Amino acid sequence: MPNSIDLLPLWEAPNQADLLLTHEAIQPFIHRTPVLENASLNAMSGAKLLFKCENFQKIGAFKMRGAASAALRLSPPEREKGLATHSSGNHAQAVALTAQILGVPAYIVMPHDAPRVKVAAVEGYGATITYCENTPQDRQRTLDAVVAKTGAAFIHPFNDYGVIAGQATAAMELIADTKAVLDVVMAPVGGGGLLSGTALATRYFSLQAETWGAEPRNVDDAARSLASGQIESNVSNQTVADGLRTNLGDKTFAIIHKRVPRILVVSEREIIAAMRHVWERMKIIIEPSCAVPLAAVLRYPELFAGKTVGIILTGGNVDVDALPF
Amino acid sequence: MPNSIDLLPLWEAPNQADLLLTHEAIQPFIHRTPVLENASLNAMSGAKLLFKCENFQKIGAFKMRGAASAALRLSPPEREKGLATHSSGNHAQAVALTAQILGVPAYIVMPHDAPRVKVAAVEGYGATITYCENTPQDRQRTLDAVVAKTGAAFIHPFNDYGVIAGQATAAMELIADTKAVLDVVMAPVGGGGLLSGTALATRYFSLQAETWGAEPRNVDDAARSLASGQIESNVSNQTVADGLRTNLGDKTFAIIHKRVPRILVVSEREIIAAMRHVWERMKIIIEPSCAVPLAAVLRYPELFAGKTVGIILTGGNVDVDALPF
Repeated sequence: MPNSIDLLPLWEAPNQADLLLTHEAIQPFIHRTPVLENASLNAMSGAKLLFKCENFQKIGAFKMRGAASAALRLSPPEREKGLATHSSGNHAQAVALTAQILGVPAYIVMPHDAPRVKVAAVEGYGATITYCENTPQDRQRTLDAVVAKTGAAFIHPFNDYGVIAGQATAAMELIADTKAVLDVVMAPVGGGGLLSGTALATRYFSLQAETWGAEPRNVDDAARSLASGQIESNVSNQTVADGLRTNLGDKTFAIIHKRVPRILVVSEREIIAAMRHVWERMKIIIEPSCAVPLAAVLRYPELFAGKTVGIILTGGNVDVDALPF
Repeated sequence: MPNSIDLLPLWEAPNQADLLLTHEAIQPFIHRTPVLENASLNAMSGAKLLFKCENFQKIGAFKMRGAASAALRLSPPEREKGLATHSSGNHAQAVALTAQILGVPAYIVMPHDAPRVKVAAVEGYGATITYCENTPQDRQRTLDAVVAKTGAAFIHPFNDYGVIAGQATAAMELIADTKAVLDVVMAPVGGGGLLSGTALATRYFSLQAETWGAEPRNVDDAARSLASGQIESNVSNQTVADGLRTNLGDKTFAIIHKRVPRILVVSEREIIAAMRHVWERMKIIIEPSCAVPLAAVLRYPELFAGKTVGIILTGGNVDVDALPF
């Protein structure tokens, strides 16, 4: 493994130097993804939209950044025993590929009804899969058993300062690679790893931009958490944006509460329409969760008129046999 | 219109200087599209594949290059009367947008059963549409009537040296933007405008690359034409690669016969599988016609093993409601 920078565990929210070191350290694990602009979408929104294309990232999503950042903070003896997580989504692939690059085992807990393509992708990175029932309780029980048996280190999908520092690097690159001065940086919010990291990166590296979140109305726990000042839960998980169903964690909530002034909510119809606009106009493949910030820009044009808006396109892992159009 | 280079009509196949001038002249009409590489597809093919992404081109396809090149070769009085063509595909959009940029009228003849999205796209560029029956005879009759009435200049979709010179500029950029020395440049072949232009550009600007074509087996007229030494026709037009149904023209055939040593044919199943690989691995949207060269690379690995292969990804205009997967 060609990495030569030692990253230490983070006991509090990463500072500016932490983010710079993180970005340097995870280079062997990530692509520098392009920032794209599209004339049609600019015209449609009345804003200047700059898309950071993490759908082109390794494993097809930004999650690679956080997984690598967290894994590199383990001591070598910890790392040797392997990485473990529960996820049926992009985080599972990110942990699996990170372990493969590090040359250590990966143990992934997935529900037995996870989509075949996602199982195949994780297996393709050489991870060992343990199946569980599709309930939070059984998922955690199964993961605990795997960790107890193997000694592997659990990489939380979002509520971990190492993960947050990794996710922050997408916005760092967006800011560095954008000639225009950004007014707003937008990210979707599920567990809040990306949004909290984006808020820190924007605070540290942008001249003036604010960080705003965007969320499906059907799982609007983060918007409600921001309003109430405490972590709220979702009663439903019915959204096409399957990456955004999770509630916030205490670490991500604390950062978001302090640094994110606004979380916009959008309908399912608006998410699907925005996803389709990106496919048809930009000719790039994004997953539904990824379309939520653009949906918000198009839903609330008065907030964005004339602004320069960076948008993190989070991922492109979609089952082309089951499209929501 | 910001163009300052006069292009003259071409009475024979464009030479090296013609291509350089053409590329300079059409700058206001085109994007410089990126060249992308994908580790999964390299591994899958055993070759180094460099994809020139004309799916990101204006109007979503390389056809913009040829239409602009042909239109700029008209004298100003000719141009004033407008541009005309028959097409229900990317060439129609290319002529319409070229006319819009030039500030002249566009007249497009389309079959009355053309897909709604394609009609809307052409109308979106301000073109006047005249509908015809979906037969070659009525299409030509209707176009002749439009040209007689308006005095507009007919821009042929492929059998025109101006168009060929324009299409050549995609391969010129591919060669210029690629650090590796290319062994082969691949393009799909329908009427042969792109393949003949690519062959010229590769001959003039590449150190050693050959140009190879790729074609659906169901409409393999170009492969048969190369074998027989004369222009052959298709008996069927049953292919998912709807941009490649046309036969060669005399101008495109002459260049291809001289400059293209090999045209590979692939099945419908192989085309659809290759399209899906690009969607899933590269996270970019390509249309079926565009997947034909990659299908050939994967079908005939022995021809490509260890080679560096440039592939023109021709376009991304696909109806996401009617995918072939």
